[in-house]
Amino acid sequence: MYSFSERLNQAIQTKNSALVVGLDPIPDRFPVWLKSDAKSPSAIAESILSFNKLVIDAVAEHAVAVKPQSAYYEIYGSAGIQALEHTLSYARTKGLLAILDGKRNDIGSTSDAYANAYFGHGPLSSDALTINPYLGSDGLLPFVTKALQNGRGLFVLIKTSNPSSGELQDLPLADGRPVYVRMAHLLQELIVGHDANADYSCIGAVTGATYPAFGSEIRTLLPKSILLVPGYGEQGAGADMLAGFFNADGLGAVVNSARGIIYAFSKKAPDCTPEEFKAITRHAAETSQAEINSARNQRV
Amino acid sequence: MYSFSERLNQAIQTKNSALVVGLDPIPDRFPVWLKSDAKSPSAIAESILSFNKLVIDAVAEHAVAVKPQSAYYEIYGSAGIQALEHTLSYARTKGLLAILDGKRNDIGSTSDAYANAYFGHGPLSSDALTINPYLGSDGLLPFVTKALQNGRGLFVLIKTSNPSSGELQDLPLADGRPVYVRMAHLLQELIVGHDANADYSCIGAVTGATYPAFGSEIRTLLPKSILLVPGYGEQGAGADMLAGFFNADGLGAVVNSARGIIYAFSKKAPDCTPEEFKAITRHAAETSQAEINSARNQRV
Repeated sequence: MYSFSERLNQAIQTKNSALVVGLDPIPDRFPVWLKSDAKSPSAIAESILSFNKLVIDAVAEHAVAVKPQSAYYEIYGSAGIQALEHTLSYARTKGLLAILDGKRNDIGSTSDAYANAYFGHGPLSSDALTINPYLGSDGLLPFVTKALQNGRGLFVLIKTSNPSSGELQDLPLADGRPVYVRMAHLLQELIVGHDANADYSCIGAVTGATYPAFGSEIRTLLPKSILLVPGYGEQGAGADMLAGFFNADGLGAVVNSARGIIYAFSKKAPDCTPEEFKAITRHAAETSQAEINSARNQRV
Repeated sequence: MYSFSERLNQAIQTKNSALVVGLDPIPDRFPVWLKSDAKSPSAIAESILSFNKLVIDAVAEHAVAVKPQSAYYEIYGSAGIQALEHTLSYARTKGLLAILDGKRNDIGSTSDAYANAYFGHGPLSSDALTINPYLGSDGLLPFVTKALQNGRGLFVLIKTSNPSSGELQDLPLADGRPVYVRMAHLLQELIVGHDANADYSCIGAVTGATYPAFGSEIRTLLPKSILLVPGYGEQGAGADMLAGFFNADGLGAVVNSARGIIYAFSKKAPDCTPEEFKAITRHAAETSQAEINSARNQRV
């Protein structure tokens, strides 16, 4: 069995891409032919799935993974979760890895339940999951154990992309280091203790593109972690801010773009046909792929 | 419209109880007549719902709320989430508030989507939700806004009950205060800024029963917050450790017990009938109610 990092790195090299496409479906922003008058959760969930399939078809050659953001599915309850299940499996049939963005976290016994939900073989089985580290190592360990066992990966929030991320994450500790550095050390201890032999670990980190200096520092602190980098595109970070997230082998990071790709049509051709939608979405993915590659190439 | 804190305090006074019953369904621990040979997610989800209904019937007089832990439902994907939806609505028909334990968190736009999922009127509408504060105030604000608008509540993790909670939460900051105190101040700023006129705020805090000295301190730092106190019962904290979480009015905290109540039958009568199961579960809830009340009375 290949580990998550082996599978992800193989995809990066085969496709020459470090692009992850975020699937944040917002029905109000869908093309008009996907909007339905029916307002039931199941009718909306159906159009979410149709939208996601079109996006997946359009980006499959240019991205290594999709990253559905769980909140946008939970709004529609079980119907939304069913659309999420089908999205995860559809992405895999199209050769994309599925990174679920759920930022899950809890005490050990409950983290174990979350690990079963996402790193087991049930309906929400995913290749990787984002995790929040506020509860410390005993809340992280069940994810690490299950990820190693079943070839999955976790991305632990270290420095997030939002404006207020520094309110906790940047606070200086008594020893002079900021919180995010201490959290990176905590992850490095987990890697050394549980996944020391891998070239790249199954334990990755989330590091916002909007804070490139932090990204370079976390890159150094966690040399074997793959960084999941959100915030590029509509959230404000340009491609020129991405180079420091990569290692000199051109690996070690994947960059997420959601709205800049999946809603690219709304600026270019809001009344597009399904075929035009796919062409515009594909082109947006291809452009992002190239921009991210130019950042990777600065490091190689 | 009554606020969440008004509704919760009214329930505490009417029922003379500050007990919350955690609904952490683990099918392997169910009574034998609820175990099915069918292993499909939908068959298991059906027995989870039957189990929860029995528990709700048994505890409705003695508890003010139930707290389903989302992880145990997510394991079964959309079928599990459907069981969660029905559990939330069934609890309300039995006069219980529904606190969803999801520890959700994200950047502002995505927190807004989570707030729509849990504080809107969709299938997962809940009275309150637990929230992780690692991303700072812009990840919390959408929850606060929606809670105030729709009479819901949030419980923000400050000091969690697990052994490794101190790895981040207890770290001393450069100004000498530990992280959990800084996070309590952040909450207090949100309360003063957004919910200053309430006797008790819709912005509550999670404070583990396993750390009673921290509980008393957080009680003082957040006088208007209702504290959601996990860790009592099977997790190890005794009733003698609870007094400091309450205010002198006997309000200001609710105490969660899950496994000590919902699996009480397995120690007393593993082969019980459904009627015996209800009687044992009711008795366990009543005992917890009384123990918690004796802690409340120490403060009054």
